[in-house]
Amino acid sequence: MGSGAVKRAAVITHGRPETIGPALDRLRVVADGAGVELLFDEAEATKHRVEPEGKGPEDADLALVLGGDGTMLRALGRYLGSDVPVLGVNFGRVGFLSSIARSGFEQGLARVFAGEYHVVELTTLEVEVGAEKRVAVNDLVVTSSIVGRMIQLEWAIGGEAFGRLGCDGVVCSTPSGSTGYNFSNGGPVLVWGIDAMAVTFVAPHSLNARPLVVPPGSDLIVWNRTPDVPATALVDGHPVGHLPPDDRACARVGRQRSLLATLPEVTFFSRYSRAFGS
Amino acid sequence: MGSGAVKRAAVITHGRPETIGPALDRLRVVADGAGVELLFDEAEATKHRVEPEGKGPEDADLALVLGGDGTMLRALGRYLGSDVPVLGVNFGRVGFLSSIARSGFEQGLARVFAGEYHVVELTTLEVEVGAEKRVAVNDLVVTSSIVGRMIQLEWAIGGEAFGRLGCDGVVCSTPSGSTGYNFSNGGPVLVWGIDAMAVTFVAPHSLNARPLVVPPGSDLIVWNRTPDVPATALVDGHPVGHLPPDDRACARVGRQRSLLATLPEVTFFSRYSRAFGS
Amino acid sequence: MGSGAVKRAAVITHGRPETIGPALDRLRVVADGAGVELLFDEAEATKHRVEPEGKGPEDADLALVLGGDGTMLRALGRYLGSDVPVLGVNFGRVGFLSSIARSGFEQGLARVFAGEYHVVELTTLEVEVGAEKRVAVNDLVVTSSIVGRMIQLEWAIGGEAFGRLGCDGVVCSTPSGSTGYNFSNGGPVLVWGIDAMAVTFVAPHSLNARPLVVPPGSDLIVWNRTPDVPATALVDGHPVGHLPPDDRACARVGRQRSLLATLPEVTFFSRYSRAFGS
Amino acid sequence: MGSGAVKRAAVITHGRPETIGPALDRLRVVADGAGVELLFDEAEATKHRVEPEGKGPEDADLALVLGGDGTMLRALGRYLGSDVPVLGVNFGRVGFLSSIARSGFEQGLARVFAGEYHVVELTTLEVEVGAEKRVAVNDLVVTSSIVGRMIQLEWAIGGEAFGRLGCDGVVCSTPSGSTGYNFSNGGPVLVWGIDAMAVTFVAPHSLNARPLVVPPGSDLIVWNRTPDVPATALVDGHPVGHLPPDDRACARVGRQRSLLATLPEVTFFSRYSRAFGS
Repeated sequence: MGSGAVKRAAVITHGRPETIGPALDRLRVVADGAGVELLFDEAEATKHRVEPEGKGPEDADLALVLGGDGTMLRALGRYLGSDVPVLGVNFGRVGFLSSIARSGFEQGLARVFAGEYHVVELTTLEVEVGAEKRVAVNDLVVTSSIVGRMIQLEWAIGGEAFGRLGCDGVVCSTPSGSTGYNFSNGGPVLVWGIDAMAVTFVAPHSLNARPLVVPPGSDLIVWNRTPDVPATALVDGHPVGHLPPDDRACARVGRQRSLLATLPEVTFFSRYSRAFGS
Repeated sequence: MGSGAVKRAAVITHGRPETIGPALDRLRVVADGAGVELLFDEAEATKHRVEPEGKGPEDADLALVLGGDGTMLRALGRYLGSDVPVLGVNFGRVGFLSSIARSGFEQGLARVFAGEYHVVELTTLEVEVGAEKRVAVNDLVVTSSIVGRMIQLEWAIGGEAFGRLGCDGVVCSTPSGSTGYNFSNGGPVLVWGIDAMAVTFVAPHSLNARPLVVPPGSDLIVWNRTPDVPATALVDGHPVGHLPPDDRACARVGRQRSLLATLPEVTFFSRYSRAFGS
Repeated sequence: MGSGAVKRAAVITHGRPETIGPALDRLRVVADGAGVELLFDEAEATKHRVEPEGKGPEDADLALVLGGDGTMLRALGRYLGSDVPVLGVNFGRVGFLSSIARSGFEQGLARVFAGEYHVVELTTLEVEVGAEKRVAVNDLVVTSSIVGRMIQLEWAIGGEAFGRLGCDGVVCSTPSGSTGYNFSNGGPVLVWGIDAMAVTFVAPHSLNARPLVVPPGSDLIVWNRTPDVPATALVDGHPVGHLPPDDRACARVGRQRSLLATLPEVTFFSRYSRAFGS
Repeated sequence: MGSGAVKRAAVITHGRPETIGPALDRLRVVADGAGVELLFDEAEATKHRVEPEGKGPEDADLALVLGGDGTMLRALGRYLGSDVPVLGVNFGRVGFLSSIARSGFEQGLARVFAGEYHVVELTTLEVEVGAEKRVAVNDLVVTSSIVGRMIQLEWAIGGEAFGRLGCDGVVCSTPSGSTGYNFSNGGPVLVWGIDAMAVTFVAPHSLNARPLVVPPGSDLIVWNRTPDVPATALVDGHPVGHLPPDDRACARVGRQRSLLATLPEVTFFSRYSRAFGS
């Protein structure tokens, strides 16, 4: 599953340089030793005061993330549609998507640069909010825009109406998102490799709101039916639009795959045990 | 349990007069027929363009609410510490606290005015947010102030530390609040008459967050341990204060009781079946 | 999706003839009108005192079930590996798998015989209990053999150990089984069409037991680690074997598909709304 | 809260002597040092081949349990109605009710013998199964008598009918039982000191079965409405009777209190954190 040794690696880092500290210098040492060229786009080059390379990040064999799950999501989103897999070194709190712990930095990277990694294809979502289309790596969340105010959502899946519901919101998540906000709301864990999305309500004031796992081909549509409270749509944790009363958002299992690179032993199950295990 | 026939009833209505429509006129007819004097405070008198009575609402035998659960909470809070019970006619959506349905208006009120009602004592909470003390009829909610951003809460009960947790927030609710936001978050239903409060997290990113039911004498303390996200405290659905990082809120089973008047057959269980039953 | 008009239909009925009452006579009238030959195997022929036909049930275009979900499961299991789809008329209580209500009997069957039906492919499980292999249409359940006694189960998925857990048992279910015993235990609803299985514990005495949805290729293995309590394995509700201490059962997403015939409008979602909706 | 130094302690041990090993000898050493007389009833005396004392166990200042939660329940049940508190040293697996860990044996007992312990009053249940009345320390469970077969239960609380439900069973638990089988089935944790019982269904095939917490004065009645499956009633884990079709069981918050002795620092919350904490 590995694609041979890495020659060029794009570097993507957490928004605040101080989070990763001297990790960039340590990365350089490992890269030099392995003969790997590090590529920085303009923003990264400016942030870390390095020269941007002649090659662009799209020429990389691998994208290397120093950060947490937020930075991983940003990188996975950016490389969607390319064939560049993304590998994370965890400098954040949870790090479910990261494949190398901060403590195993040098050793892990040396193995990856030598080609010792797998690529996992992760299901994405096609999302529509208003007129705009987006791809979500983890999830679409539609939630009340006013703290402490419930919203009324009407929903339908696959053209079948499910009525309306008072709640804080709804999460539609991919398998990679299923251990995030979906999990917090009692949604099921979808092991990576399942081609489906989970639909889970946030604080539903109803007993009729069991999480559903929905296959490709069935669209979720959610309408904000609250006369006086707008809703916010978030993709991968970032607000992407407002849903005034009677506006809608839409999500379906997407055709694109995000490509996650990982050390072979860092499976979904080992990540899950580490994050939530006893 | 009834306290004899009603002679004076204070009237409290939903904030928007159009919600209750011609109900006030219908109420007047029933009150006149039963020889009941209706009392309006200044705000109600202005809203409905009636003369405020010589007697103040504190002289009422009963407070009569035309509205939904929000108006009921406002009225129950207002009469805390008095011996005036509050009875609701439902003009809202859920109406868990109301004792008379909109359709049974005249008949129900006639029975109440004749003294055919029970008074239920409901447990309250003593709440501290910052330096201020308040009494909650239904619940204290501490929640992230920024839509889509998780907060880190540290919590303790009865002086025992429970660690910290990433979540959207926490609900501490009385039995009357247990079928509200507590219920939406998977909390247990506390039948009226239990002297305890439920502590339930909102979207906890953890498996170690089973709802707890806590007796009098054990305080819940919650600290906002999120460096960059403030939290909002809401009492009975209304924002009452902000918790900047490292500030705390506190709740305990209170000594005061709110007094709910109800037709004898409209028990907790009949309300529950109506609201959530099959 | 329909396969043209039906010429020969095999008939499978609930174990107790009195359950379906005079339905067989009504079926005959519809079949005669549509020119459909009804096929009975020996057991059915004996039960209903009809002549077994020359043609065997395997020559049918369609298998017709008069009964409930239990009879449906038996029929779906029997026709596994053939290309005969199974269609149910509900004479039971829940009837999630049935496609025609008892009240719409004649009309529904006339449409089906005219070829107006869809065939849905349902994922199955390959199950191993002791030395024996079986196929499950709905689920494998491993549960304590002694009423009121907890068992200790050790479990692994995809070769990854998950430790052990005190519980009443575990359910491994297909999408069609997900609305059955899996649902009763808080498992997620898998919409038909998902190629995955849900793993949900029954009464786990632990917080670390969130349901998992597992893709093809990852085996679930469950060992009974209770020194003094045997476990029972059930496939589609029927006991198939005992697990003495330290014995194991195994389940994986199977390669076979069971074929469910349905009126076009009786989708998964309409079944779900009917069974669990508000 | 302590009642002065202990002079006489009754000893109750796990059913199988080998479970507690040489603990009895160690206990003797501590008791001798503290001048505490150990009392054995006939069964214990026979089991451990000691002379039964002249004084009976009812003359003890304290009952000392060497065993797990099962032995604790047996001892708490036996001393109901006396004023002898029960203190446990954990030789079992969970040990939620025990107050001294196996490792802190000598030190903990020396403190207890010196009078350094608290007594906690625990709510009990009055249970009726058929014509027989019993007291439950932890819980009443009504469950299907046939492995793998669902039962239909009809239920009512406080005289209010709640309809019927397909399920594996129902648990009615005290606060001390709330962390046991009630917990396994998603029931709420009732902190010790609450005078109420939790009603939680086991594997309900319905969405309308949220756990309820019920105050004194409201009886739970459960009827087995399954024509062909008997139910078993268990009190504190032990079968006490069968419910043939249409028979019923009944539970209410009892007037008796069981008396649990504990080291002052081993609170409910510390037990909960140890058993289920992160």
